[in-house]
Amino acid sequence: MKIQGLAAKTSGAELEPYSYEAPSPQNFQCIIKVLSCGICHSDLHMVDNDWEMSNYPIIPGHEVIGEVIEIGSQVNHIKVGDRVGIGWQRTSCLSCRDCLRGSENLCDEMQALIATGPGGFADYLEVDSRFAFAIPDGIKTNVAGPLLCGGITVYSALRYAGMGSGLEIGVIGVGGLGHLAVQFASKLGNRVTVFTTSKDKAEFAHELGANETVIVEKNQPPSAPSQPLNILLSTVPASIDWASYIDFLDSDGTLTLVGVPDAPLSIPGFPLLMKRRRILGSVIGGRAMMQEMLSVAERYQIEPIVEIFPMEKVNEAMEKVRNNQVRYRAVLSHQL
Amino acid sequence: MKIQGLAAKTSGAELEPYSYEAPSPQNFQCIIKVLSCGICHSDLHMVDNDWEMSNYPIIPGHEVIGEVIEIGSQVNHIKVGDRVGIGWQRTSCLSCRDCLRGSENLCDEMQALIATGPGGFADYLEVDSRFAFAIPDGIKTNVAGPLLCGGITVYSALRYAGMGSGLEIGVIGVGGLGHLAVQFASKLGNRVTVFTTSKDKAEFAHELGANETVIVEKNQPPSAPSQPLNILLSTVPASIDWASYIDFLDSDGTLTLVGVPDAPLSIPGFPLLMKRRRILGSVIGGRAMMQEMLSVAERYQIEPIVEIFPMEKVNEAMEKVRNNQVRYRAVLSHQL
Repeated sequence: MKIQGLAAKTSGAELEPYSYEAPSPQNFQCIIKVLSCGICHSDLHMVDNDWEMSNYPIIPGHEVIGEVIEIGSQVNHIKVGDRVGIGWQRTSCLSCRDCLRGSENLCDEMQALIATGPGGFADYLEVDSRFAFAIPDGIKTNVAGPLLCGGITVYSALRYAGMGSGLEIGVIGVGGLGHLAVQFASKLGNRVTVFTTSKDKAEFAHELGANETVIVEKNQPPSAPSQPLNILLSTVPASIDWASYIDFLDSDGTLTLVGVPDAPLSIPGFPLLMKRRRILGSVIGGRAMMQEMLSVAERYQIEPIVEIFPMEKVNEAMEKVRNNQVRYRAVLSHQL
Repeated sequence: MKIQGLAAKTSGAELEPYSYEAPSPQNFQCIIKVLSCGICHSDLHMVDNDWEMSNYPIIPGHEVIGEVIEIGSQVNHIKVGDRVGIGWQRTSCLSCRDCLRGSENLCDEMQALIATGPGGFADYLEVDSRFAFAIPDGIKTNVAGPLLCGGITVYSALRYAGMGSGLEIGVIGVGGLGHLAVQFASKLGNRVTVFTTSKDKAEFAHELGANETVIVEKNQPPSAPSQPLNILLSTVPASIDWASYIDFLDSDGTLTLVGVPDAPLSIPGFPLLMKRRRILGSVIGGRAMMQEMLSVAERYQIEPIVEIFPMEKVNEAMEKVRNNQVRYRAVLSHQL
């Protein structure tokens, strides 16, 4: 059997049809029929080889929702016919201390799906069943994908920063990540302040549950929110005015980063010390956290706002993502 | 009654005798007869007006051990004859949320002892009894002082960074702060790695309980310790090679600062994210933490290594502190 994918054959190239032989799933592997797949900025970075770890031809797509059609001999927790999702992580060693304590995302041998093989812009995909997650019934196929990367990224970061309920939580940026962070923080009972450069996005953030919005003017320091923040999540992969944002934190507050800024962070020491503040970096999340996040998303009806494209319009969709024109996450679907 | 103190009358001046009228202790105030007083680098900063909050004449001294000789009408937890210690903090509002949760050190109205009145380089001192701490019997008068500022600073920082037992803890710098951090971390059952530029101090750190030492060569990146660190405490008030030190942290590890670096910290984002590491600033500690620290110091025989000077040799002692010639903390004493 041949798998039909969409691949960039060189750095920055448009995607074009590319087929490869479907493997026969061994041990813990399984084959899924792709139903839908989100597009993440990381897909563009990989197509462009921005992180210098791309192997061409590269088939992007790491927010994959599919139906299990064939399983290897060791697969026991999912069965043929199940609807599952796969995110950024293909697999990990599953035996180091990080893996054993449920932080497989920090494993030294962590493999990124699209850095180590084909991704989900295809009709079928072989995946490690141990990193395939059952999608709860209440989450629709065409919106589920972005939870697997964008969703887990912000959820895990907020949890490790101490998100409970009744807290003041700030979110910098209302995009694919930010619009999910606002929902998680708000629906789990926190008061949410959003920092955005766009009035439209500020309005939209209110609809998603934000209690307060701060419009940040270009090249101006951001205005202070009305309340000091317990947690401030930056979803912006750029250098921002760290000193101002740190001042917005309450005592023992945490500034949490999920995007890699283009330059080292410049952090003044004094405001960090005087209020015992913290800075935390976070990347995707472990398997237990993924299950928890999916369960929370179903129970609290947290849903990515998506623009859905048929799979063959991949280049158009990628271009819109590249130009930040998608509100708020693009999904390719075989189910239109 | 006149109090005889030792004051700098202008910025950077030598200390000279200076007397002022002893107040009559009202409400929560009490008068102590000073027995001994540590010298901290912060005393030099205040004499030199480095932080632009000094009022002259300034009587330094904020690691004060004394005997209570007179108490105000509201004082109830200490009595005349008790031996008490006072640290960096004179008082706070005691009604804000930080104060109410035992983080008086983070209070917006926190008053530093020597920024708001006379300090402990004197024969007597009026203090707020609510920030005077009973010194456990097992701690000797002439060594107790440095616990009240240096001790609480490192102890609280280590606790808020998650210090328990069985952890890998690194300490950068073996001075007044570092030599106490090594003892607390080691005697509470952690494995300690010390980073120092001095071979002598490395040897001494082993005597204090360090398991491993890394000699840092000038203008060279530090060598990696044999084990990744759960907590790395920087006691150095200078800009150091933050990027290298962050790489020494284990997953979920915390770099903790208690000194204010002279320039903003330059922190690379990627290594922070990939291992979900944290950076924490910390300043002195609250009252409950102070009591805990003193109790731990007594039970585990954690003792500042001091060089003791008679009170009248204050200028000689200050000069040695200024030149980093004291091993490891200077104390002025009336009891020689």
